[in-house]
Amino acid sequence: MKKVYLDNAATTPMDAAVIEEMTSIMGNTFGNPSSIHAFGRATKAVIEQSRKKVAEKLNALSGEIYFTSGGTESDNTAIRGLVSANNLTHIITTKIEHHAVGHTVEELERKGIVNVSYLDLDNGGQIDYGQLERLLENKGKETLVTLMHANNEIGTLLDLEKVGNLCEEYGAILHSDTVQTVGHYPIDVKKLKVHALVGSAHKLHGPKGVGFLYLRKGTKMDSLLTGGGQEREMRSGTENAYGIAGFAKALEIAVNEQEEHIAQVKGVKQYMIERLQQEIEGVRFNGISDQLEDTLYTVLNVSFPETPQKDMFLFMLDMKGIATSGGSACSAGAQQGSHVLAGINADLNRINIRFSFSKMTTKEEIDYTVHQLKEILQKD
Amino acid sequence: MKKVYLDNAATTPMDAAVIEEMTSIMGNTFGNPSSIHAFGRATKAVIEQSRKKVAEKLNALSGEIYFTSGGTESDNTAIRGLVSANNLTHIITTKIEHHAVGHTVEELERKGIVNVSYLDLDNGGQIDYGQLERLLENKGKETLVTLMHANNEIGTLLDLEKVGNLCEEYGAILHSDTVQTVGHYPIDVKKLKVHALVGSAHKLHGPKGVGFLYLRKGTKMDSLLTGGGQEREMRSGTENAYGIAGFAKALEIAVNEQEEHIAQVKGVKQYMIERLQQEIEGVRFNGISDQLEDTLYTVLNVSFPETPQKDMFLFMLDMKGIATSGGSACSAGAQQGSHVLAGINADLNRINIRFSFSKMTTKEEIDYTVHQLKEILQKD
Repeated sequence: MKKVYLDNAATTPMDAAVIEEMTSIMGNTFGNPSSIHAFGRATKAVIEQSRKKVAEKLNALSGEIYFTSGGTESDNTAIRGLVSANNLTHIITTKIEHHAVGHTVEELERKGIVNVSYLDLDNGGQIDYGQLERLLENKGKETLVTLMHANNEIGTLLDLEKVGNLCEEYGAILHSDTVQTVGHYPIDVKKLKVHALVGSAHKLHGPKGVGFLYLRKGTKMDSLLTGGGQEREMRSGTENAYGIAGFAKALEIAVNEQEEHIAQVKGVKQYMIERLQQEIEGVRFNGISDQLEDTLYTVLNVSFPETPQKDMFLFMLDMKGIATSGGSACSAGAQQGSHVLAGINADLNRINIRFSFSKMTTKEEIDYTVHQLKEILQKD
Repeated sequence: MKKVYLDNAATTPMDAAVIEEMTSIMGNTFGNPSSIHAFGRATKAVIEQSRKKVAEKLNALSGEIYFTSGGTESDNTAIRGLVSANNLTHIITTKIEHHAVGHTVEELERKGIVNVSYLDLDNGGQIDYGQLERLLENKGKETLVTLMHANNEIGTLLDLEKVGNLCEEYGAILHSDTVQTVGHYPIDVKKLKVHALVGSAHKLHGPKGVGFLYLRKGTKMDSLLTGGGQEREMRSGTENAYGIAGFAKALEIAVNEQEEHIAQVKGVKQYMIERLQQEIEGVRFNGISDQLEDTLYTVLNVSFPETPQKDMFLFMLDMKGIATSGGSACSAGAQQGSHVLAGINADLNRINIRFSFSKMTTKEEIDYTVHQLKEILQKD
């Protein structure tokens, strides 16, 4: 059966060059990077070269990059550690953050550590920048702002530079979940006035189980994991050297070939929008995900007319070999509705499907998918 | 130059079969395990088969195994999560735990969450079981006991079954850092009355960046990482599927070939003890690490007479291609003395070196090492 993978916002297939890099290190460089002998120093060198590579691609300093086990750990570390180290008592965020942010903020609120202000969102998932400024005027200096750079379900992009300028003006600390944009868009931390941002390797054809946290030089943060004091006391635990090298390789490829990938994947997205509009009556797009410049070029969130087979829709696509998602993968197990679509008042009675693309997606796969969608919808 | 790796308690070379297993999954099974489509289900199957394999090797239930990013995360999760979920106010431990435990306990004490009782240790690093019982009699029900199964520097083994029985009798919760014994000794959680124990793949020829936490069924624990609710709400973050499969493979090999490895490595350790006693005047052993039955067969902590070149000793061994350790690798970066040797009142003026072995260590490597040690010591 034909297999079409359109769930690249959940995770991406690994690049062959990344697997090769990791396999080589697994076979040859096994020392503990904290050991001072030759075996340890060789591994340490791999990690520090990787750190330098990652830093360069973000225009950061090597000393601003901390490796972790993934986006979730990075987000948890940043939010919890920035709040406690800086005695913050207020968080500004939205109702459509990734759960790694949303649930962490909720826990801090439940424990009475912070109060939380949720920004209003328009139907496109865009925040009210005026409201953000008013909140910051009021108590900027005790505030952590945490806003995702791009929403993982509907793709809406934040003006991170604008938010950074506001936070700087009012003395707030800014964290951004940039898991969906690192490697996919140019990110220059010297321009963005962000204190912390995060990356996850498996979102850009790298390995699962490795991420990074960028922490701006001079920013105070408590560590989440205590122990041997690795990562300059910020993240204890023996470093996942193979994963770190794989991440650096994946990011290097992603950034070096970024313009080409953007053009190609944007073309695929545009093609799918057009084909859906031509072939499927009553099709709509959730948020503003059909607006190419203001949303992730990798994500298209589509709203199909309700049919009696609504609950079987993802399953029927899967039977045709097409992998898509109802919400984010991370909450799929929970079988709950999407908090993002609820947060922008999307019509939850319709069939809402996230299609997400990568450099490996072809127009021919889109043709197959649109054809199958049409067949399934006509069955009813 | 000859290369002799005698730092296996810090980390071990990966088994070729483990690398092969991981490479195959990296190339073929990339779906997000939380996704409900075929790509996701394939990865989910890899993880659940791995969980079953790990559980079987410990005589645990699959539902009692949670995968993490390593021993440090597992220890942090257990200690912090057991204390908070069970409203514990008292911890019983020792001064010679791994820093993943020791520093975590210290942080909880510093924050005023718990009081800490440190057990007295004899010169062999063994606890006073009578003292433990008296402390438990006093306030067992509000207590977390955290004691490592085997010390990573001097190898002293704990009678974990005895400690488990005491904890059960007085209603305390028991966590044990078993990083040095999982895969190396038979572990049967049905016999041990332990609530939580931990494993780290890279200590048994598996990959870095992956560990597990065994949590006894029915035990309440709060999660450390919040987010998508993976690992049955206990450990959020996309699972490191390749690492998890690699861990299961490494543990399978370790347990299946355990008797053979024990006999072989114990022979290597005994041989080194004899050769050192024959060749090096004034040699001693720290703790009781020359007692084969009461200490890790993988670790020999040797005390050499002080020489003027003391501070250069590890470096001179490294120049001869021999990798050893002054303390644990995890604190090597800190350039501090060993808290373990200090904790058992070892003579810190002498030259203290940890040699640690694996199934890959040969007697011929021991001959080379003893020869080089003799040369270096005679130079002075």
